[in-house]
Amino acid sequence: MFENKEKTPLDQLGEFKLIKQLTGEFKLKHESSVIGVGDDAALLENQGLEVISTDLLVENVHFDLMYTPLRHLGYKAVVVNLSDICAMNAIPKQILVSVAMSSKYTLEAVEELYSGIYAACEKYNIDLIGGDTSTAPQGLCISVTAIGTVANKEAVIKRAGASEGDLLCVSGDLGGAYAGLQMLEREKRVFMEQPEMQPDLEGYDYIIGRQLRPEARTDVIELFEELEIRPTSMIDVSDGLASEVFHLCEASEIGMKVYEDKIPIDQLTYDTARELHMDPTLYALSGGEDYELLFTLKQADYDKVKNSMDVSVIGYCAPKSEGAVLITKSGVEHPLKAQGWDAFPS
Amino acid sequence: MFENKEKTPLDQLGEFKLIKQLTGEFKLKHESSVIGVGDDAALLENQGLEVISTDLLVENVHFDLMYTPLRHLGYKAVVVNLSDICAMNAIPKQILVSVAMSSKYTLEAVEELYSGIYAACEKYNIDLIGGDTSTAPQGLCISVTAIGTVANKEAVIKRAGASEGDLLCVSGDLGGAYAGLQMLEREKRVFMEQPEMQPDLEGYDYIIGRQLRPEARTDVIELFEELEIRPTSMIDVSDGLASEVFHLCEASEIGMKVYEDKIPIDQLTYDTARELHMDPTLYALSGGEDYELLFTLKQADYDKVKNSMDVSVIGYCAPKSEGAVLITKSGVEHPLKAQGWDAFPS
Repeated sequence: MFENKEKTPLDQLGEFKLIKQLTGEFKLKHESSVIGVGDDAALLENQGLEVISTDLLVENVHFDLMYTPLRHLGYKAVVVNLSDICAMNAIPKQILVSVAMSSKYTLEAVEELYSGIYAACEKYNIDLIGGDTSTAPQGLCISVTAIGTVANKEAVIKRAGASEGDLLCVSGDLGGAYAGLQMLEREKRVFMEQPEMQPDLEGYDYIIGRQLRPEARTDVIELFEELEIRPTSMIDVSDGLASEVFHLCEASEIGMKVYEDKIPIDQLTYDTARELHMDPTLYALSGGEDYELLFTLKQADYDKVKNSMDVSVIGYCAPKSEGAVLITKSGVEHPLKAQGWDAFPS
Repeated sequence: MFENKEKTPLDQLGEFKLIKQLTGEFKLKHESSVIGVGDDAALLENQGLEVISTDLLVENVHFDLMYTPLRHLGYKAVVVNLSDICAMNAIPKQILVSVAMSSKYTLEAVEELYSGIYAACEKYNIDLIGGDTSTAPQGLCISVTAIGTVANKEAVIKRAGASEGDLLCVSGDLGGAYAGLQMLEREKRVFMEQPEMQPDLEGYDYIIGRQLRPEARTDVIELFEELEIRPTSMIDVSDGLASEVFHLCEASEIGMKVYEDKIPIDQLTYDTARELHMDPTLYALSGGEDYELLFTLKQADYDKVKNSMDVSVIGYCAPKSEGAVLITKSGVEHPLKAQGWDAFPS
């Protein structure tokens, strides 16, 4: 905000120079990325099967630039796609990134965005192999396509495949990203009303990080291989636990029982929800954007998992007729409600 | 405009129902499309090498809904991506489509858009295997990723590869899409000033079709295989002939001579340019969006091509030091100017 550095308007640069400026230094890491950015299309020579997914992030729908640093946004745009690849039990290898932005953005702003994209590529060993840049009448829109590989069809884990008696497990903790969003929104409101107030986000680092700079659980996928565990079904938690439980139930044609007291919620997430007079369980069920992996396991695989500190067993698969049910801390059964994030809120 | 049919607002439907409504009926055509829409990611088992490309279309930058039917827009969004796959000498097989749109759009409008996407999938034998839908604060943005296959690395044709003496060829005719755009823009201006006037586009069908509903030259790629022709370099004409000539020259490190009188321009394109007091050659050089293939051939391959009515030899490759040159109808040499479409116009 107080920088005096000279900025370069995008319209002074043109598309081809912009692409060169943004992607010129990028070195391909995988042998399978035969041709990257710079021709009409990229060329891939992946061994085995390929998994491919795409996601759009739209300004003022998926992010608010008032509290989202562009570098974090670039990182997150990549991560949410890598998470989808992980949810198929695949290891992500390549991405394509398209960006449409209003010409009020400067080259320096776009470079910030790409610095986050590159940071994610570095962290997850990903090649950026293509994309598109375009102006937009207003706002910023980022579309990422991610490609990963699995050894064979048997290794692929779908939403379908869970059966009665399987354990329901989740990696990491839930609700934190939503708690972080609530704090950022609160500080935004304070700033709008009293611009002279200093932001008060001290002590909330963990949940704000969960919101602004999530990670994809490639480590869990690697752990599965190491421990020789094969989940029977899997999905990533992008819309909230309840919504994902419904997806697994629907695809696998089963019911599920989730124990409220087993849902992993970080202490700071819990305290923040309480501070805002909200139910921490609701944050986990309906908040979304945690990008953890929700999966089902055969009971025989449980022993292999129980020493892994970062995976929680939160319930089990029941007959389809029993539906998706939350067993509350007081032992009461409630039908789960899918209140996940809706792309078209009314 | 005068329809009384009931419309369904998108916010009444929600994202998951919308995706189901849009993609539920789609049948996968390729054995290599193992899993399509409906899980966290799609699963592909393509033989040989894969070519992959992505393009964004943004409302009021790439299209104007005042004269672009949504069905044609959906078709074009797919075709421009297939064209990039063709430009690598590959056959397109799969696409992923992401759409962000303001919630003022109705389900019926989105279905129109998808009917065009499906029409292109049908025509070009393409599987829709994934995507994303999202609301947007305003406007419409479509991101398509296309995947194609080539038998081996030797079959891939890049922008680099042309050498001195190679012939420069182009499929179809050029400048028509831009001529069509000019007519549509003229009628829009008339309508804005005198809404009671009837649009006068009779007789302009060919060029309006070139603008609103272009085709990808998969047939040319098939012809290459049939005639056992291997171009030495190739690109598709999306930004105008001049811009594409520069790309080939730069990547191949050569110069090129283009004969103005050899550039294929349809009679209607020519007449329309004249009617608007413009230079038809400029339409071909700088108009863009023709999605024809521009490629270089060894002279020995010329005999195989000369009986193909749909390919024109328009020039040849010269030493790099001579640059990219237009030889005008009067025989004068002019350095070519790249005035192709600019993603960030100033």
